[in-house]
Amino acid sequence: MVITANDPKRKSWLEIPKNSDFPIQNIPFGVFLTRDDIITIGTRIGNYAIDLGALHQLGYFEGIPLTDDIFLQDSLNDFIADGRKTWRAVRNRIADIFDITNEALKNNEEHRKVILFTLDEIEMQLPVQVGDYTDFYSSKEHAENVGIMFRGKENALMPNWLHMPVGYHGRSSSIIPSGIPIHRPQGQKLPPGAEKPTFGPSRKVDFELEMAFITTDANQLGEPIPAKDAEEYIFGLVLFNDWSARDIQRWEYVPLGPFLGKNFASSVSPWIVTLDALEPYRTEGPTPVTEQLPYLKTQGKKTFDIHLEVALKPEKDEETIISNSNFKHLYWNMSQQLAHHTINGCPINSGDMMGSGTISGKTPNSYGSMLELSWNGSKPVRLKNGQDRKFIQDNDTVIMRGYCKNTDTRIGFGEVSTKLLPIFKKD
Amino acid sequence: MVITANDPKRKSWLEIPKNSDFPIQNIPFGVFLTRDDIITIGTRIGNYAIDLGALHQLGYFEGIPLTDDIFLQDSLNDFIADGRKTWRAVRNRIADIFDITNEALKNNEEHRKVILFTLDEIEMQLPVQVGDYTDFYSSKEHAENVGIMFRGKENALMPNWLHMPVGYHGRSSSIIPSGIPIHRPQGQKLPPGAEKPTFGPSRKVDFELEMAFITTDANQLGEPIPAKDAEEYIFGLVLFNDWSARDIQRWEYVPLGPFLGKNFASSVSPWIVTLDALEPYRTEGPTPVTEQLPYLKTQGKKTFDIHLEVALKPEKDEETIISNSNFKHLYWNMSQQLAHHTINGCPINSGDMMGSGTISGKTPNSYGSMLELSWNGSKPVRLKNGQDRKFIQDNDTVIMRGYCKNTDTRIGFGEVSTKLLPIFKKD
Repeated sequence: MVITANDPKRKSWLEIPKNSDFPIQNIPFGVFLTRDDIITIGTRIGNYAIDLGALHQLGYFEGIPLTDDIFLQDSLNDFIADGRKTWRAVRNRIADIFDITNEALKNNEEHRKVILFTLDEIEMQLPVQVGDYTDFYSSKEHAENVGIMFRGKENALMPNWLHMPVGYHGRSSSIIPSGIPIHRPQGQKLPPGAEKPTFGPSRKVDFELEMAFITTDANQLGEPIPAKDAEEYIFGLVLFNDWSARDIQRWEYVPLGPFLGKNFASSVSPWIVTLDALEPYRTEGPTPVTEQLPYLKTQGKKTFDIHLEVALKPEKDEETIISNSNFKHLYWNMSQQLAHHTINGCPINSGDMMGSGTISGKTPNSYGSMLELSWNGSKPVRLKNGQDRKFIQDNDTVIMRGYCKNTDTRIGFGEVSTKLLPIFKKD
Repeated sequence: MVITANDPKRKSWLEIPKNSDFPIQNIPFGVFLTRDDIITIGTRIGNYAIDLGALHQLGYFEGIPLTDDIFLQDSLNDFIADGRKTWRAVRNRIADIFDITNEALKNNEEHRKVILFTLDEIEMQLPVQVGDYTDFYSSKEHAENVGIMFRGKENALMPNWLHMPVGYHGRSSSIIPSGIPIHRPQGQKLPPGAEKPTFGPSRKVDFELEMAFITTDANQLGEPIPAKDAEEYIFGLVLFNDWSARDIQRWEYVPLGPFLGKNFASSVSPWIVTLDALEPYRTEGPTPVTEQLPYLKTQGKKTFDIHLEVALKPEKDEETIISNSNFKHLYWNMSQQLAHHTINGCPINSGDMMGSGTISGKTPNSYGSMLELSWNGSKPVRLKNGQDRKFIQDNDTVIMRGYCKNTDTRIGFGEVSTKLLPIFKKD
């Protein structure tokens, strides 16, 4: 089936602001609460949220095999489980419904009233119920930077790093949508030179600029997914802020990996941009510097050119862009990550989320965490208001944005914005 | 509310074999498929499975606030979310219904026909839909044994180990109930002395003798659970076999912890034994060897005296008991584990599972893994049939059992039994 929704010449009868992340060529999927407090699955064009549950009830998806309640759910898991053919048919149909040449819905005011919402009428939710969340560590620049700081230049990259997309399991229960504030975590830290840990608020709260992909049901227990087939099982991508507490992480992480230094929160942008929508922005990743095992080899354009930025906004003040990076910098691509994750037969389900790991580029202004930007606090980051930051302060908001652009079109991810509140106090 | 279900003098009108794990003092909870292919929540007394959905529909839970479909579900998550007061009321009521002095159901053949099943009529399922699975590392003896083998005697216990119940996130999607066979995993390994990894089947497939506790909804994002309150949020325990591939694990685990060496499978016993049922078997754990931070301090009997054993059964041959251990050996108790897990505000939900980590005792016959029993292959374990085992061979079945016993009563967990098949081959 051709992806007609991507046609760069297509225009919509809905007004789309210049440089919008959501032209008719995007058509992402998300979950929102409507003005009537009803939860539904929807998409977005320009600054309109579109209720797919209502569209379906009114017959606009006729001919596409969908269960009656597929969009009347509080997560996209079941729709994602329907598979790529269905995603593509629905996305192509949405493009047709809102195409400038199609007047059926445009001229039906009664239908428009129950289908279209302005953004201030809705509240975005987590788009999937995350079954399992895995975080990779696939930026060579990030792994080297952290390695140099924590273990010195000699041992920066661990011996396994160039041979596999290193990853670990994260916590699903603390994945939250953009807009939900979090609290500064407390925990154990080892002060420099001390032999015993102390307890208290983390003093090194950090963001990690990541993206995450969301999978569909892919395999049975025991069955590996070949790298060449992996993209068939990827629904789409979101922006992902993997909050970290560096002081807690550093004391706890040996030998079983990060735990409380990570699992207090991870924030995601609420609209899942499909792999189909990203198709025009395919590109090649970095050339491998060592020979890879056959199950990890991929050919051709297996990544995407996605511009990423991080802004830091102090309370009641303007934001400063503190990092500019790109998804294409990642050394290991999603196909390699999924092939590696399943080579031992680990089952992948609809709604699973896979973080890329912090996406740092080669230059210091492209680093994807405060740990790297401030080089563990030794080079404070200057904000527009004249303040310095080594790590994130109470009441700071961290905002990540991402978009793709070529000569024809521009689509984007919107943003993931999260405010850090002081430590939790029981009411 | 008093736990009347635990009365050691209580007898049932159902026949209970001598030394059964499931006398009327146990009353565990599980999920099974009936002879009519209907999924339901149930309990077990003696060798009878009891359909709680049918009992509820027939009015036997009158007076207890329960939704109509609470037992007509494919997981215990919603029932567990109802909280301890409800669990206790239901368990006490079940004890009354099957008490030898109560003839209501006993004399109602029509009701008995839809409520009682023999074990060969049902198929046990996973008892909960696991939201998040965390694995701790709370046996000092196990951590020391592994540390000595992997890092030498000097660095056996990491500096953080005595200060916190070290843990990491595991994979929920590969948690399976007893009886489901698994495949030998494949992956990357670093041969001794080599600089580059090779690919192939794991040659060091191992079990880990663990128990896991299952939680209810406990806190909001940001809110810690004090150790003194933690048991309020623990529904019960199961036997847990955390399958491991030691060669894959060893190459991959630095710096982010175990991943593919673990996530190909973890097996659980299907009946959740409640904390209430374990009450008579409370005991104290080991005395801490160093001062613990205030948030981790607990007082009194915070663990349970649960005898554990591991049997290895080669294909078409008799089993050999290869390990005898006890849950009470664990250095860190469940209250400390849950307090630590949430000290940074990580949310705990109904159906989350927390593994104890391998439960090894002080003596070599109490070690909870082949890695320790065969000391990484250097001391093969002799089986009754004369064969030796360094690790698990294709078509071996690993069976774990557990029970509690005092002068009055004995209750148990049944077993978790899993067969290791050769590597997966696509049909």
